[in-house]
Amino acid sequence: MKRSVFFISDATGITAEALGKSLLSQFESIEFERITLPYIDTVQKAQQAVERIKKQAEWDGERPIVIDTILNQEVREVISTSGAYMADVFGAFLRPLEVELNKKSSYTVGKAHSIVNDRHYMDRIAAVHFALDNDDGARTTHYENADIILLGVSRCGKTPTCLYLGLQYGICAANYPLTEEDTEELRLPRELVPYRDKLFGLTIDPERLQAIRHERRANSKYSSPRQCEMEVRGVEALYNKENIPWLDSTHHSIEEMAARIMAEANITTHVKKHLSV
Amino acid sequence: MKRSVFFISDATGITAEALGKSLLSQFESIEFERITLPYIDTVQKAQQAVERIKKQAEWDGERPIVIDTILNQEVREVISTSGAYMADVFGAFLRPLEVELNKKSSYTVGKAHSIVNDRHYMDRIAAVHFALDNDDGARTTHYENADIILLGVSRCGKTPTCLYLGLQYGICAANYPLTEEDTEELRLPRELVPYRDKLFGLTIDPERLQAIRHERRANSKYSSPRQCEMEVRGVEALYNKENIPWLDSTHHSIEEMAARIMAEANITTHVKKHLSV
Repeated sequence: MKRSVFFISDATGITAEALGKSLLSQFESIEFERITLPYIDTVQKAQQAVERIKKQAEWDGERPIVIDTILNQEVREVISTSGAYMADVFGAFLRPLEVELNKKSSYTVGKAHSIVNDRHYMDRIAAVHFALDNDDGARTTHYENADIILLGVSRCGKTPTCLYLGLQYGICAANYPLTEEDTEELRLPRELVPYRDKLFGLTIDPERLQAIRHERRANSKYSSPRQCEMEVRGVEALYNKENIPWLDSTHHSIEEMAARIMAEANITTHVKKHLSV
Repeated sequence: MKRSVFFISDATGITAEALGKSLLSQFESIEFERITLPYIDTVQKAQQAVERIKKQAEWDGERPIVIDTILNQEVREVISTSGAYMADVFGAFLRPLEVELNKKSSYTVGKAHSIVNDRHYMDRIAAVHFALDNDDGARTTHYENADIILLGVSRCGKTPTCLYLGLQYGICAANYPLTEEDTEELRLPRELVPYRDKLFGLTIDPERLQAIRHERRANSKYSSPRQCEMEVRGVEALYNKENIPWLDSTHHSIEEMAARIMAEANITTHVKKHLSV
């Protein structure tokens, strides 16, 4: 069974997509075709969207599902003529919230992902640049300004996780690749010692690591089963000896790792600083 | 007026945060304190969360707002004893969707942001590495594999936008910094000519650019008003002459730029490829 799902917004569509992803992931046996229509902010664009939805309905032989975050009521009314099943996100939550807060909402389009709070946005962009500048142990001079320093072997997911921590939460995350030399003596690299409280380790299943490295550099020592196994055992031994909190990235997405790292490293002060408007 | 808002989830909390951000941004006159409690997946953790919420209520003198994506009903029932105003995301949408789809949902925790679809997740991670490897015109040999190539002056937002396109959508985005030399002759750099169809320009208000560059390198030629003005005028002239679609990043967040670029560059085929599970 296949169903088409439209995420429609008068802004980016990111909220509709995120919510839709959560909802649809609960129906594993159904194949969904996902179509995002962002910036549907005029009646004319809404009419074009309706045509698109109707065409899809004919094609599928089933009415599509629309998950929308459209604030403009005129635009929304046009979309609701499409015959699709409509999940009205703002309708479900905004009106009850108006009552609870005893305030009319502003119904202003495109607030969620705009540069509403310049400082918070600038913090996030600065954190992305921080992650880039402090990637792969390239520079350790800025570790003083890091909120967290991720450790791990090459290709265990340090860099994307650091970037995500910056992009999503405005957390300044550096990363330091542990090498064979570092782990052989079971001793923290000298540069890391002053920042012990900021260290967080990543590990990964050696077989998975091997597959990832193989895609990058096939049939090299770097991607050999033996090398991967040895490096991973080495960092895990180091984490345990030095009492560094760590996480296995094998079955976790970067979103999950970021959320877990923040929870476990207890950097809620930063989070609150950054998340509060 | 200040209200506390808790985003509570038995997984990362990303969906609750995204939805909450959209909803709360509609009440500009209210100051919100935002607290995310991820991985509330046992009754015991739920009880701790309830204590936290009650303490906050006393502190604020107002009942907090809870926006939750908790699938475990037992856990959710504990949270609902907190006395907070509850916005039940799954309750509002999951049950009606079960009827529409004529299927029981799996009520499995942590699906949305897990590595459900390995291929799609790997595509996203590969796209992040693609953006890093093809940042700032460092290498142009991989442009053939790029879905899009962003152009613009230094510090106009190319790199974070490329990273976001990779992280969020799995789009392989390279970027090429246009310099004074490039724009002086109003001619596309030679390396870019074969990839004309993939080019997308960014521009920025010169004053804004100056402020950004000033934070990086104060009182330099690089951050002088004259230099910024000249570079920006140069790239805009080039975009117009060469018919390159472009976007002004001054008042747009990277999320907005990514969504707009995808809409305008019409890379929906990729998006669909990447967004469909």
